[in-house]
Parts: sequence; C-alpha cells; structure tokens
Amino acid sequence: MFHSELKKVAAQIDRIIREDDFPGSINPSYLREAVKDYPSRGGKRLRPAILMWSCGLLGGKPESAKFAAAAVEIYHNWTLVHDDIIDNDEMRRGKPSTHFMTAKVAGKRFKMKPADAMTYGKNFAMLAGDIQQGWAANMLLKSVQSGVSPELTIHLSRRLHELVNRDLISGEALDVEMPFVKMEKLSPGIIENMLNLKTGALLRYCAETGAMIGLGTAKFANDKRVGQIGEFASLCGVAFQLKDDWLGIFGNEEKLGKPVGSDLSERKPTLLLYHTWKKLSPMERRKLIDMLGQRAYSAKELNSIRNLMRETGAEEKVLKRAEALADSAKKILLDFPDNKYRKLLLALSSYLTSRDK
Amino acid sequence: MFHSELKKVAAQIDRIIREDDFPGSINPSYLREAVKDYPSRGGKRLRPAILMWSCGLLGGKPESAKFAAAAVEIYHNWTLVHDDIIDNDEMRRGKPSTHFMTAKVAGKRFKMKPADAMTYGKNFAMLAGDIQQGWAANMLLKSVQSGVSPELTIHLSRRLHELVNRDLISGEALDVEMPFVKMEKLSPGIIENMLNLKTGALLRYCAETGAMIGLGTAKFANDKRVGQIGEFASLCGVAFQLKDDWLGIFGNEEKLGKPVGSDLSERKPTLLLYHTWKKLSPMERRKLIDMLGQRAYSAKELNSIRNLMRETGAEEKVLKRAEALADSAKKILLDFPDNKYRKLLLALSSYLTSRDK
Repeated sequence: MFHSELKKVAAQIDRIIREDDFPGSINPSYLREAVKDYPSRGGKRLRPAILMWSCGLLGGKPESAKFAAAAVEIYHNWTLVHDDIIDNDEMRRGKPSTHFMTAKVAGKRFKMKPADAMTYGKNFAMLAGDIQQGWAANMLLKSVQSGVSPELTIHLSRRLHELVNRDLISGEALDVEMPFVKMEKLSPGIIENMLNLKTGALLRYCAETGAMIGLGTAKFANDKRVGQIGEFASLCGVAFQLKDDWLGIFGNEEKLGKPVGSDLSERKPTLLLYHTWKKLSPMERRKLIDMLGQRAYSAKELNSIRNLMRETGAEEKVLKRAEALADSAKKILLDFPDNKYRKLLLALSSYLTSRDK
Repeated sequence: MFHSELKKVAAQIDRIIREDDFPGSINPSYLREAVKDYPSRGGKRLRPAILMWSCGLLGGKPESAKFAAAAVEIYHNWTLVHDDIIDNDEMRRGKPSTHFMTAKVAGKRFKMKPADAMTYGKNFAMLAGDIQQGWAANMLLKSVQSGVSPELTIHLSRRLHELVNRDLISGEALDVEMPFVKMEKLSPGIIENMLNLKTGALLRYCAETGAMIGLGTAKFANDKRVGQIGEFASLCGVAFQLKDDWLGIFGNEEKLGKPVGSDLSERKPTLLLYHTWKKLSPMERRKLIDMLGQRAYSAKELNSIRNLMRETGAEEKVLKRAEALADSAKKILLDFPDNKYRKLLLALSSYLTSRDK
C-alpha cells in the first residue's frame, strides 16, 4: 500500500507544480526553464507525503494540504540548486545540475570560454534558486484556496521563513564550514545538530504543517500532537542522514548514484569519520586526516578505510545510533490512533531509515 | 520638510530592522553578521518612504505600513548581496561587499588561499542573501500586528513573490545577459523593459502596497488609485536609472562612489550607448564596440566617448527621455488630493530624478 499511496501523492504534486502559472513569465527563457527544471524532475516526493499523511493522521483531509505539500517540494528544490553550486555537483537525479545546464546555454549561445560560461551558469543558477524560493512561498500562500484559514496560512508561512529558512540554511552553512574545522573542535552533538538543521528542520516542518492543517481552526498552535509528529519526522531525518553517510562509504556505487568515498574527497567530518578518528592514536589520526581530500579512492584505499571504521567500532556505533533514532521516531507514532495514515507514516519511516540506496 | 521626514522614516526602519529577532539564531556567527550587515548599513530608505507616504496619501496611517516598509528594505538588500556576487563588486555603501567580508573571514579563520577564500565567501554570501529573502517575507507577514487584515497581508505577500521576485530577478538576469547580446538585437524598448523589471517592479510594489494598506479592508484590489500610484513610482524608477546611466559617464567620480566608465568596462548596453551606436557608420560602430570591456579608461578616452555621445545627440535624447518619464510620473500625482504626503512624494520624485550623485 505504501508505494502505491506514495505514487498517488507524487502524481498530484507533479500536476500542481506543472500546472502552476508562477514561472510562466520569467525571462530570459532559459532562466524560466532552469526554475521549472528540478521541481519538475519528479523524485519520490517524500516531503509532500509526510505533510499530507500527517494531515490525515490528525483527521484532516490531505487534499486541503496539497498546496502546502507542493510548496515544501519546491522549497526543497531551491535549496538543492544552491547546494549544487556550492558543492560543484555536476549531476542531480541523473541529469546535469542547474548551473551546468545554464553554463552550457551560455557557452553555446554566447560562445563563452568554459570558465566564463561556468561563472555565468552559476550566477544564473543562483537567480533560478532565488526565484524558486519565492515560488515556494507563493505556493504555500495558495493554501487559502484549499480551505486553510488566512490566519493559519500566515502562521505556516512565518514558520517556513523563521524556522526552515533560518535553520536549514544555518545547517547548510555549518556543513560547508565543518571540513575546515579541526576535528578536535567537533563532537557527535555538533555533527548531529548540523544534520538536524540541514535535514531535520524541513522534515519537522512538513509533519507539523500537515498536523496543523489537519487540526484546523485555532487549535493548531498549542496542540501537543503537533510537536510530537514534528519530532517523529525530525528523528527520521537524522537517522536517514546517518544511514546515508554509511552508504557513502560502505554502499554500492551503482545504487548510490555518486562515487563511493565522495564524503572523503570533500573532507566531510561525518559521524562515521569522527568516531573512527576518536579511537586512533595521534599518529594514526594524522594518517587518516592525510588521506582525506583526494579526488578519487582506489578499491584498496577504500577497503583500508572501511576496515579502520569497522575495527574501531565506528561503523557499528553509527548504525546503532541510526537505528535508535528510527526506533524513537516510531515509538512516538504509537501514541497516535491506528489509522491508514499512521501505517503509511510508519512505512515511510522504515523506508527512509533502512534503504540501501 | 522632505529631508527631515525622510530621516524620520529612516530612523524608524533602522529601529525595526535592528530590533527584529529573526537573525538572532543564525549559525555560524559570521553568517549571522552577514545577514544583518547590508540591512543595517542605513542608506536613505527611499523604498520604505515611498511605501509609507503612499499609505498616507490615500488616508491611511503610515504607522500601519511600517512592517511592510521594513520588509521592502530588507528585500532590496538581499538582491544587492546577490547582485554584488554577480558583478564581483568589492564595495557597497563605502564598506566591503558581503562576499568580500565572508571571504576575509574564511581566509583568516581557516587560512585558505585567496582564490579558495573567495569561493567560500561567495557561497556564504549566497546563503546570506537566501536567508535575507526569507527575513523580508517574514517581516511583511508581521503586518497583521500593525493592523493590516490577514487577507490583505496574504494578498501583499503573494504580490511580493509573484510580481517582485519574478520580475525583479528576470530584470537582473536580462541585465546580466545583455552585454553578451549583439547590439543589433536590442532596442530602446528592450532596454527600458529591463530597467522597468529590475528597478521599476520593486518601486511599483512599494507604492501599491502603501496605497492598499492606506485604503484598507477589501477595497484594495480594484481601486484605480492603486495602479496609478504604482505607475508613478515605476516611472520614477526608470527615470532614475536613465539618469544614473548618464551619471556613470558624465558624472563626478567622487560624488558617484564608483569609477566613471564602469558601465563601459562591463559592456553594459545602456540606452546612452545604444543611441550613440545607432547613429554611427558600420566602421565607427565597430570602433565603439572595440572600446568596451577595458578595465579602466583614461581621461582622454572618456572624453572622446563623451564627445561621441554628445555629437550623436544620444546624451540629449536620454536626458530628455528621463525628464519626460519624471514629468509623466509627477502628472499622475496631481490627480491626488493635495496633502502632506503628495508634497513628500513629489519632492521624492524630484530628488530621484534630478540628483547629481
């Protein structure tokens, strides 16, 4: 049931995004295409599903949350566009990233040199993400058309700007900063806090927004269940990220869609790396740190790092931590009535935290 | 009276921005400082003045428009942060631009090489602008606290995202693109359309928002006066930009705060350049185009370009066009009751379009 219901959500979100006239008058045309690109590429639409099912869980009609659900998806996508600029990622969901697309247009249309075209492409991708942020905010405000009260719509919009924008971008900034911070200054708490901001904040927002729309009227602000369902989603988010970090080292490259070891190339102090480092002698620590930042890793190099992560117990620690977070998340849901939407959300949390790709 | 009233607006906006707790929990701390930086640098606060005085013009209390006024100022500032990244500008209002500030932090804190620090600085400035866009949207939604109805607040927020975000960023994109487009493909209409999007859209929004808050209740949507006052501001904006382009060539470098001729360095097809080019023979055209894109211009080179602009009549044409737009703007205001706010808006339009710095 989970997969068929998820597909239904995805189809509805796809349609709302495709039919929305917001991007219609953007100029020049390749900026317009860049704005429509990521939000139209599909994907699983997990965030909209969390939002609409949380609405159903608390007795609301998921339909009334559809604009909010489309909004969080567009919101997620603008952060990906800017994220890809920062990480210099060439691909996103199997196609060129936005700045690579716009760089290509510039090279072709204006015969620019590759380096100039790349700068131009990044500038245009930045602007595309800027417009997408406005598009998402606008989509959320359309919620009054699906029966959400103006007061709640304003409340939800303010939360999007106050909590998500600020927290999510702080998380992104900390993620960019961390590879330059000395390992001695980090801690599991600091690393999980970053993950919680970068991924947890938006998932929490999805669940809480759905819950508030589900409750409707003025009750939304102080209902304990809103915070509980938010905590559920946030815990799932961090568990997902920890699993994701593990897959980035121990996973299957084909299923992963990006090179195994790319976190090592980017010197990302994942929890996995941190726990490994922590167990080493000063000399071994230096050796590990010296191995970071390579463009690519041979199978032999990867295996020696994997062994280190296994022998120090870091791998087990991280996987156990991810499981513990996922379990805490699921326990929260057990306080809620056992309806269709609770089943769906439980299945979604299993999907998120036990996925192997 | 104009200058003292403008100072009053500026003082109020400064206070609202300074006291707002939105940026308080941004991390890391230098990202927080970057977000607060431009909006706190002061400046004339012309956009808030247009908004609050337009509110007064239609009989509203300017006080009720204060959050909207602070919002447009923050909004304006996020576009400047991203604009400065694109133009690679080192300075803004006499201090280093945001990406130069954050690059400096990165160089110092993480001992990065200059090129890496600059990339890091630009990434962080992009994120700072992203947060500022959310801050502006959030500030606007606070309008319910100053007596604006939830319905009107939602209407104004949607207009900010639908009109300003989309149009202003399209204008910015066209401005970035135009130096690469062949002069033959441009026209005065195309150039003025870009100016209208890039500068006119936000000024129109300021005036219309003030007018709608001034009218209050449900009347706002279809009142003819809203569009009229919007047209006034938009015309002022384009007139201002044309004058600005003239100052960029014929102005005084000290008063200007940037090198005379920087538009030539950036190959910007201003209306001034376009009209000059239009009057030349094919050979002279090639010579003019070849002169563009230099890092700097000697006094002699500048004078020969100035003479060309004078002899071809381009200078006169542009100045007359700016005057005509400013006159049309002022005529619109004469349909409104002759009160304090009409006087202030007329003075503001004169200030905008006859300034010599």
